[in-house]
Amino acid sequence: MSDISPVLSRLDADLDTSVERLVSLIAIPSISTDDSYAAECQRAAEWLVADLQSIGFEASVRPTAGRPMVVAHHAGPAGKSAHVLFYGHYDVQPVDPVELWNADPFEAKVVEQDGVKVITGRGSADDKGQLMTFVEACRAYKAVHGELPCEITILFEGEEESGSPSLKPFLEANAKELTADFALVCDTGMWDAQTPAISTALRGLVGEEITVKAADRDLHSGSYGGAAANPIRILAKILADIHDETGRITIPAFYDGVEETPSQILESWKGLGETAETFLGPIGLSEPSGEKGRHVLELVWARPTAEFNGISGGYTGKGFKTVIAAEASAKVSFRLVGSQDPVAIRANFRKFVEERIPSDCSVEFHPHGGSPALNLGYDAPFLVKAQTALTEEWNKPAVMIAMGGSIPIVGDFKRMLGMESLLVGFGLDDDRIHSPNEKYNLTSFAKGQRSWARILDALSKA
Amino acid sequence: MSDISPVLSRLDADLDTSVERLVSLIAIPSISTDDSYAAECQRAAEWLVADLQSIGFEASVRPTAGRPMVVAHHAGPAGKSAHVLFYGHYDVQPVDPVELWNADPFEAKVVEQDGVKVITGRGSADDKGQLMTFVEACRAYKAVHGELPCEITILFEGEEESGSPSLKPFLEANAKELTADFALVCDTGMWDAQTPAISTALRGLVGEEITVKAADRDLHSGSYGGAAANPIRILAKILADIHDETGRITIPAFYDGVEETPSQILESWKGLGETAETFLGPIGLSEPSGEKGRHVLELVWARPTAEFNGISGGYTGKGFKTVIAAEASAKVSFRLVGSQDPVAIRANFRKFVEERIPSDCSVEFHPHGGSPALNLGYDAPFLVKAQTALTEEWNKPAVMIAMGGSIPIVGDFKRMLGMESLLVGFGLDDDRIHSPNEKYNLTSFAKGQRSWARILDALSKA
Repeated sequence: MSDISPVLSRLDADLDTSVERLVSLIAIPSISTDDSYAAECQRAAEWLVADLQSIGFEASVRPTAGRPMVVAHHAGPAGKSAHVLFYGHYDVQPVDPVELWNADPFEAKVVEQDGVKVITGRGSADDKGQLMTFVEACRAYKAVHGELPCEITILFEGEEESGSPSLKPFLEANAKELTADFALVCDTGMWDAQTPAISTALRGLVGEEITVKAADRDLHSGSYGGAAANPIRILAKILADIHDETGRITIPAFYDGVEETPSQILESWKGLGETAETFLGPIGLSEPSGEKGRHVLELVWARPTAEFNGISGGYTGKGFKTVIAAEASAKVSFRLVGSQDPVAIRANFRKFVEERIPSDCSVEFHPHGGSPALNLGYDAPFLVKAQTALTEEWNKPAVMIAMGGSIPIVGDFKRMLGMESLLVGFGLDDDRIHSPNEKYNLTSFAKGQRSWARILDALSKA
Repeated sequence: MSDISPVLSRLDADLDTSVERLVSLIAIPSISTDDSYAAECQRAAEWLVADLQSIGFEASVRPTAGRPMVVAHHAGPAGKSAHVLFYGHYDVQPVDPVELWNADPFEAKVVEQDGVKVITGRGSADDKGQLMTFVEACRAYKAVHGELPCEITILFEGEEESGSPSLKPFLEANAKELTADFALVCDTGMWDAQTPAISTALRGLVGEEITVKAADRDLHSGSYGGAAANPIRILAKILADIHDETGRITIPAFYDGVEETPSQILESWKGLGETAETFLGPIGLSEPSGEKGRHVLELVWARPTAEFNGISGGYTGKGFKTVIAAEASAKVSFRLVGSQDPVAIRANFRKFVEERIPSDCSVEFHPHGGSPALNLGYDAPFLVKAQTALTEEWNKPAVMIAMGGSIPIVGDFKRMLGMESLLVGFGLDDDRIHSPNEKYNLTSFAKGQRSWARILDALSKA
């Protein structure tokens, strides 16, 4: 008999009480962005410490300049050296507009929605439900075997929903304590309700705000139109120049470090059944806007982009004002893949812009962000082990997917602690995280626990 | 002895009391845009009616839905049929920020600034000082000759600074009463302090607000970037396409109705000494942005333009938000010259935009304004007479200039009353109209009065 079967049985038997524990945790309104909930964040941290201590973790609430961290340690079995860091966050989004909730956001309940059992409540999916899948796996493993399969450090953050201002200083100050072989991050989702997924690539991000300045004051377009430079015109031309007719980005050297996705990965993505219509239809669109001839999932997971996130200049109120503005601004961001260098991208973009500024005008740049893409590769041993464990649990091959966006913590772990991250989660697209009526499928919660038990077991084996 | 010499002498002798009258009129804070000054507007209208009655005009305050009009009539000499309508406005701009004024904006004084005597105060130049130049000319002419040189109707408006909402209905309701051979409009300026000017062309205007709509909601640029259409990108491309490399506008048929400026007019403009450096230098620029190879005055006076007056889309607050907006908007305006047709320009522009909207996106248009250019020609008899009169007064040839902007009243007079307008004024670029410390040069006021006396005299002769 394997080590894992009795653990899985234990998890199944304990499901109802694990739901009760999650309900207790959701009941604490640990909204991090609103200072008036600071005491609730403290209470949530203390609740987690107590729960982890009950399993045998050495756990403590660790103060920061903002909301506290929870750090917990548990030794592995004698003679085994594997050591993982598990990351989750106990803070939640605000619940406004509260009148759109069908029930109290902090009174979680198991209810049936469209024939599916779900746990309701703010944080049920993001991220209290997810982090508890791991805690429950540890609890059951410890109960059955008297020990954990490997050394485990846990880090629960309380500011993920408000930009993680204390995270980097905390990682820096506690680097030694928090460094493990690799990190397990449970803040992502499945491909669909039947198909587990591991996120193996995250696009990087470079943001730049550019402000084109022309005349030293706003001008009347009657008096000066046709003679004076118009910064909106200059800005529009710059933005229009960034993409060519095929959707490729024209900034010199932009594609340096971008590699083609391996064909078997591309094939597996195509096999997921997503098309331009299924991907874009729900948001009212149908035509992919990126590089022509590429699959829509490749466009969002594995290709770099230039996006214009905001633009402003001149008169933008009601009606009309025949003004030529003194300046106009745009917020431009680039999603990076492969080994694209954020520093080079930023420099090349600035040069590209400067070359398009008339001699009597000027431009100012304000940088925002700057992180390379993260690539776990597709064949790291811990990835393959986790994939196998997930496939066994779900009776369906776990897919290696990518994420179009960034998860800053993954970059921080890599840069500050030298750790790769395994991104596994059980959220679904319809969980309504950050929105009213957030929920977490009971199946996600139950099989999530079982998945972690299997993954921990697999990771602890050579 | 001519009819005019004693009138000019009388004006000179009466200058101090004419200044006192202007000071009294400026003392009434007839700010039209602020309802709390409505009674002051009424008072200013009454002041003007009383003053015009004292000259012998049949004058009255005429209520409107907003601020009242002043209408006055005076017959011409027996046997002479010339009839002119004089237009000015008695309302003024607000005085904020009042702390930037060196003295009470409504306590006008004659002071010396940089060696030049000026009359200070809100409205001193725009337009109380200007309209009083005409009233004083009438007063002196009547005093000397016992009659006026021609039939004169006067229309003083009280809402020019707040968009003239009552003007069109008033013109319509009183068309017969207000129609004369042509209008005299005194709300413009000289070329410089030594050089009188007649404005003979005004550019027309077509405004359009365009809103490009893509997805049915704002999107996260990580999740959708590279796949979903970005309305800012679409909008930027459209705007960038409007001008070619030489600054010409690429909208089909845009230049239909645009004629080259007569070479002698162009030469006279070049003779004014204005260069790209002198025109653009004061606003911090140096390179004309319009059609290449044309003189800067031709660009603003006689060439059509496309200007982008405002643009907005996505996140425009502080910091960054990696959003792909659902929509983006721009306010675009075209200045028209010659016989360009605003209806055709609008239609061609909309078609130009629609051709550039991806099949899964849409665009909405909101029209604003739509007036053709106004061209008095350069050889109308009343224009030539006025030019001669001005040249005699100022001992310097009066230049035929154009105006880059529109003066709506001129279009209204033409379209609603079938009247051309003679645009003569004595304002200077440094009069700070609409700004703190507005002033009107004493020379403008004195020689303005003499100019009108000469012009009226000239117009009354065959």
